[in-house]
Amino acid sequence: MIVTLTTDFGLGDYVAAMKGVILGINPEAAIIDIDHSVGAQDIRRGAYVLFAATPWYPEAIHVGVVDPGVGTNRRPIAILCQGAVFVGPDNGLLVPAAAEMGIQEVRHITNREYYIPRASYVFHGRDLFAPVAAHLSKGVSFSDLGPVITDYVRLDFGNPQVDAIGIRGEILTIDRFGNVITNISRGVISERWRFNQKILVTLGGYELELSFLRSYGEGPDGSLLATISSSGFLEIAKRNGDAAAQLGASPGMAVAVRRDE
Amino acid sequence: MIVTLTTDFGLGDYVAAMKGVILGINPEAAIIDIDHSVGAQDIRRGAYVLFAATPWYPEAIHVGVVDPGVGTNRRPIAILCQGAVFVGPDNGLLVPAAAEMGIQEVRHITNREYYIPRASYVFHGRDLFAPVAAHLSKGVSFSDLGPVITDYVRLDFGNPQVDAIGIRGEILTIDRFGNVITNISRGVISERWRFNQKILVTLGGYELELSFLRSYGEGPDGSLLATISSSGFLEIAKRNGDAAAQLGASPGMAVAVRRDE
Amino acid sequence: MIVTLTTDFGLGDYVAAMKGVILGINPEAAIIDIDHSVGAQDIRRGAYVLFAATPWYPEAIHVGVVDPGVGTNRRPIAILCQGAVFVGPDNGLLVPAAAEMGIQEVRHITNREYYIPRASYVFHGRDLFAPVAAHLSKGVSFSDLGPVITDYVRLDFGNPQVDAIGIRGEILTIDRFGNVITNISRGVISERWRFNQKILVTLGGYELELSFLRSYGEGPDGSLLATISSSGFLEIAKRNGDAAAQLGASPGMAVAVRRDE
Repeated sequence: MIVTLTTDFGLGDYVAAMKGVILGINPEAAIIDIDHSVGAQDIRRGAYVLFAATPWYPEAIHVGVVDPGVGTNRRPIAILCQGAVFVGPDNGLLVPAAAEMGIQEVRHITNREYYIPRASYVFHGRDLFAPVAAHLSKGVSFSDLGPVITDYVRLDFGNPQVDAIGIRGEILTIDRFGNVITNISRGVISERWRFNQKILVTLGGYELELSFLRSYGEGPDGSLLATISSSGFLEIAKRNGDAAAQLGASPGMAVAVRRDE
Repeated sequence: MIVTLTTDFGLGDYVAAMKGVILGINPEAAIIDIDHSVGAQDIRRGAYVLFAATPWYPEAIHVGVVDPGVGTNRRPIAILCQGAVFVGPDNGLLVPAAAEMGIQEVRHITNREYYIPRASYVFHGRDLFAPVAAHLSKGVSFSDLGPVITDYVRLDFGNPQVDAIGIRGEILTIDRFGNVITNISRGVISERWRFNQKILVTLGGYELELSFLRSYGEGPDGSLLATISSSGFLEIAKRNGDAAAQLGASPGMAVAVRRDE
Repeated sequence: MIVTLTTDFGLGDYVAAMKGVILGINPEAAIIDIDHSVGAQDIRRGAYVLFAATPWYPEAIHVGVVDPGVGTNRRPIAILCQGAVFVGPDNGLLVPAAAEMGIQEVRHITNREYYIPRASYVFHGRDLFAPVAAHLSKGVSFSDLGPVITDYVRLDFGNPQVDAIGIRGEILTIDRFGNVITNISRGVISERWRFNQKILVTLGGYELELSFLRSYGEGPDGSLLATISSSGFLEIAKRNGDAAAQLGASPGMAVAVRRDE
């Protein structure tokens, strides 16, 4: 069984200890690193990474740990979906990815039988989430983890406002290349625009007239353009360049889109 | 059999070549990256990472390469412990982790049968340590590597001085979040303090009165606090912040602790 | 079957999605990360990494994605070698590594049966190269991918000029430690120099008289020296230091070498 790991720990001793714990419980686990470079305590970025990556996996247990509330009374939870279980803190981190796959049931992990006995107070990744995932990967029943809860913390990527003039959303994340990924989904865009039309994008004081293209390669070198990100959102990119740096863009900034007429 | 890798090479072509060599010798090896972001030639940090991560593993071969002396007469060694073998340079890197698991025997790797023939002079990670680990993972006998030695290089994390006034130690390492991990062990602390008491910490010119808490989450947001690190040492942390940056802390700096009276 | 990944994506959601796609098609694939820290769109660095790492692997499928031309009419290709198949864009990235192993056949991947159906226009790593590699790892025939081509894009590391006075080449890459790796191969050097001789190196305005040593450890601490890199090229290094920083060296700069007489 595949067990994936997504954290803000960096790829170092913390993540390595989690892997050791998992392999100690289930030597057959196939551990896959999704991302450990999530910004420290950046729950929203972690949620995006899980959302973008996990739906591509076959059956798997996905562990997510971006957890500013470790050691407080925030609950450890597990979410059952079709073909996937998510394990991590009850702070919204797991929710967008799980919702994408269809949430069937959420449980508060209270059964200490699946914790490791020499647990610390500061490292639930190693002492709680990793061993719970390992036990699930060995066939422990989801319903054995603890009681069903319905009041888990919700998190979504916002609902862009659509009106006669256009769409108002925000920047969801920025990738390594400086591509600006908004929270405006492919569906909302494709109802209104076709590829090769022009769109007007307002972003951080800039008013941009952009070609809406299938891919970066269709624009002139160094030009800003609009496309659909691989995760299915409106993306502002610069061919062979860094759009975010040019525009001073950062997550959370407002983005408005309307047709160029 | 699990083979773990800890280096200062970064996750790139050097580490990838090591993995290729291992898989060429033992296609069944389960290779796990522990950490490749150890600072260049920072033996002490590498030793800490191995110490913090490897005890959590089931039976495994652990390769460590932080090796400023490559190509000199520093010896390649292997250390046999209960349920683990460590392979790497004789510069202290492997010793704290191995000592934690109980050192049974140390051997100088002189048997060139387990090197790869097209060995370079500059890359023992690929040409010597990786193939030796791969052969061990396939069942080669530990005693076949070379002669037992007892004069291997020792390294420890220092012995904090304890007297009637308090404890004087030093900063061992700093984690990705800026948490300051000292070399003062849980045992020394817990004989003298209980959670929720106050302790006085002197560090880099600062005199700090800190609450000694089970976890970060028990302190007010943005406050400095003392806790026990997941690796079992006194840790100075800042809730939802970077304690090392605030205090100008770096590895090796003196830390003194006494009770607040 | 081993499937390796080399990209300029960073180890994050893009790479993780590729792994999910591969495991969905072939749950038995053993996925190995070679390097995801290649500079954005730095085809030459990616080609070097593949060249330095992949020849050390047993039979494997190697996926390389450094792909500024995604979405243009640059072709997706696969290269068959003895014991290896390379999969990636037709921009030269795969060629030096494949040539090192002996190119047997190159095919244009036109058979859309091996793409994933919900393909995006911007992420061929996930939607085309990963699934093609996964299908190959399950036994799909190389000849089934598409037609043979011979006009694929060539890339090499340049041919240093050798004359009576010396050798003129350039800097190929710089490693994490600041070691300067040239494109002057071991063979060219070893015909003219023996270890422990002096060589004169001209580099970026500096005229350096360097000892040509088997390894870093043979030079005095902090000294510049010449050696042979683990990938088989003339390397300028600084013992326990960063030669590139001291010399202001960067890839592409001219390097000339002659005997000190």
